[in-house]
Amino acid sequence: MSMFKTVRGMRDFLRRDAEKLRYAERAARELAVLYGYEEILTPVVESYELLAAKSGEEIRQRMYVFTDLGGRKVALRPEFTASVARLVATKLRNAPKPLKLFSVGSLYRYDEPQYGRFREFWQANYELMGSNQPEADAEILTVTNHLLKKLGLRNYYFKIGHVGILRGILSQEGIMEEQQNQIMQMLDKKRWKKALTTIKKLGASRQCLTTLKKISETRGKVAFDILKETENTVQNYESAVAAVENLRQILVLATTGENKFEALIEPGFARGLEYYTGIIFEPYVPELEIALGGGGRYDKLIEMFGGEPTPAVGVAQGIDRIVLAMKKQKTKFKIREEKRAVVIPVNAEVKTKAFEISSMLREAMIPTEIEVIGRSVSKALSDADRRKLAYAVLVGPEELKEGKVVLRNLTTREQKTVDISELVIKLKATK
Amino acid sequence: MSMFKTVRGMRDFLRRDAEKLRYAERAARELAVLYGYEEILTPVVESYELLAAKSGEEIRQRMYVFTDLGGRKVALRPEFTASVARLVATKLRNAPKPLKLFSVGSLYRYDEPQYGRFREFWQANYELMGSNQPEADAEILTVTNHLLKKLGLRNYYFKIGHVGILRGILSQEGIMEEQQNQIMQMLDKKRWKKALTTIKKLGASRQCLTTLKKISETRGKVAFDILKETENTVQNYESAVAAVENLRQILVLATTGENKFEALIEPGFARGLEYYTGIIFEPYVPELEIALGGGGRYDKLIEMFGGEPTPAVGVAQGIDRIVLAMKKQKTKFKIREEKRAVVIPVNAEVKTKAFEISSMLREAMIPTEIEVIGRSVSKALSDADRRKLAYAVLVGPEELKEGKVVLRNLTTREQKTVDISELVIKLKATK
Repeated sequence: MSMFKTVRGMRDFLRRDAEKLRYAERAARELAVLYGYEEILTPVVESYELLAAKSGEEIRQRMYVFTDLGGRKVALRPEFTASVARLVATKLRNAPKPLKLFSVGSLYRYDEPQYGRFREFWQANYELMGSNQPEADAEILTVTNHLLKKLGLRNYYFKIGHVGILRGILSQEGIMEEQQNQIMQMLDKKRWKKALTTIKKLGASRQCLTTLKKISETRGKVAFDILKETENTVQNYESAVAAVENLRQILVLATTGENKFEALIEPGFARGLEYYTGIIFEPYVPELEIALGGGGRYDKLIEMFGGEPTPAVGVAQGIDRIVLAMKKQKTKFKIREEKRAVVIPVNAEVKTKAFEISSMLREAMIPTEIEVIGRSVSKALSDADRRKLAYAVLVGPEELKEGKVVLRNLTTREQKTVDISELVIKLKATK
Repeated sequence: MSMFKTVRGMRDFLRRDAEKLRYAERAARELAVLYGYEEILTPVVESYELLAAKSGEEIRQRMYVFTDLGGRKVALRPEFTASVARLVATKLRNAPKPLKLFSVGSLYRYDEPQYGRFREFWQANYELMGSNQPEADAEILTVTNHLLKKLGLRNYYFKIGHVGILRGILSQEGIMEEQQNQIMQMLDKKRWKKALTTIKKLGASRQCLTTLKKISETRGKVAFDILKETENTVQNYESAVAAVENLRQILVLATTGENKFEALIEPGFARGLEYYTGIIFEPYVPELEIALGGGGRYDKLIEMFGGEPTPAVGVAQGIDRIVLAMKKQKTKFKIREEKRAVVIPVNAEVKTKAFEISSMLREAMIPTEIEVIGRSVSKALSDADRRKLAYAVLVGPEELKEGKVVLRNLTTREQKTVDISELVIKLKATK
């Protein structure tokens, strides 16, 4: 039989990589509690119709789609928002607003694998439903910033735009939503030239083209200055001006106090997902080309899914990418390493007693292994050394007669005979 | 647009259900640390060839199989063991033994949905590689028992058998492995009559049929008596006798000291997976017809996958089923509920300051929400009451001038004006 491998684009997480991923997941969950987001779990397999509805052409083409044994067209979720919106349109329809939901898990896209981009990836997702106020957008930015900071990243920035700027201009020029979607997809790929040609063909005014050209060239990290400049650029387009003002209000709130972060304002920025209606953003570190996550406002999606009209804003934090960024930036991450013990029976007759003792230690919450290969004491001890265990408990028939075992400190190599009844106390005392 | 639903057999976990699932997952992970199992993550999507290799006909037919956009035949994992065995045959080939690996995540089988059985389900999986000793089997039983106990289940039992008993008899009768596999599948479905007819047709002796008939009728909870009885029944089949003796040794170790559990010995018990070679077991509660998990020894799988010959034993604990059993048995489960605060700006001008204060509280690890809908103070307060928050911090322009806010205890309804600089201390003090 040929050697089995992971499927292209899929990967295993071993040892420190697994530990880091779970660490980042835990940090994200802690923030959910801290900000009052309730955790939910939705399935990996959803109806294709749901996932395709407003995800955008590019993601639609890269979904894992198949027909299940019951003939249903289903897909592996490429993102969380459609599932959360489904819930808010159905089972959580009558839940009081604001509704703040947290999810974390794996997602699937048939993208070309590249550095940091895989076909199975992990995200922590925060959605805030029921508020159209800038406070809500600011909170979503804040929680994202908080996670990056908490995980020890330095030197990251948020690329920030607002779908309302471009859509505001295009709408005022009479360009229909379907055509706007296509144009936004082009801009997501930075195909400004193609987009401008398309817009021209659709009969947009010369003023529109000049405005868009200028927007395509506007970006910078002196956030409020860039916003002022953008406002001037779009001054003839009322709803684009309102979008810039909305962005300004959000940023005032989001960058206050402890929350400071570097923002790269890019008014011509577009994201792949079709459902955005307001602010959009993506955090980056200079060490990686791909975004660490992404988010934005989507005020129409829940209504489109049959729910009550519900303004909403959310973010997906790419936790496996954040872990990669943590590695690149060599951030320290602390996982409390408990001191571990191993119980070694010196012969086969005392195995049962050794089992009993290992259970006793675990009941006392001391991480405890037991020799399971039946090796000699010296082999078992040298393996324990290699694996950096802290203590060995040697169970021998002689000592057992007196209710005792030998406790060996694997660091100092000291050993002493102790009463079994005192073993837990001794181990805890030396911690 | 029609209302979207979950795909048949898939489900959402909301509120307490999500909380309980994550709680059980966390408990399983804590035990992995306590027993020295290292967490790994493997992909949900694996090659069909890998997953189908030794899973057994029934599971093969119920896998979610499809062709990806690159033309690869892939499937959603129906269990963890094949993926873990792949790792041990490849990337972890040279890892020192024993190798103890823990995984937790979602799995997929296109089973007919029934009470407690879904098409997406969650398992915590422990695999112990590199030991053929009964200590290893006993440890896997022990960690399973420990989880059930830790999660507060009472009144559960382990159904326990040993594949070596039936296979030992069939082998000595000259029945080939492929045919044995088919027979084991029938027995997994309790089709003893069909199995016995098949065995007869394959030319088995009268003694064999009598022995198997007796085995089919043997089961009971006085474990060591049943084992004695079984040993007598199979006395003419050498390797079946050895299997019974192996089971006895395992149970002596596994039921010692703190680890007591009720065992229902059923020597004719078979499990769906083809790869088992030794002990097999499934925990049950009387309230549910389906098993809470299952495990066993599989000594040939890793070699079959191209790895070094590696004896192995493992268990998959069905954590969503365990959660269901916890509900049925009304077990208490404790999740520490932190006291939560809400920050409410009394008007739009002080929103930025309110944001700043909420960040300050979260930096101090106090779970803090902020009013994001822009409601009046009285509406925001009554919503906070409904959601059982503990404190409200009212941010008003008058108090702000003196660097103060109003702190309201939502339980006692007392409120006082406090310095912003003292807010964290006051909140922590009243915890």
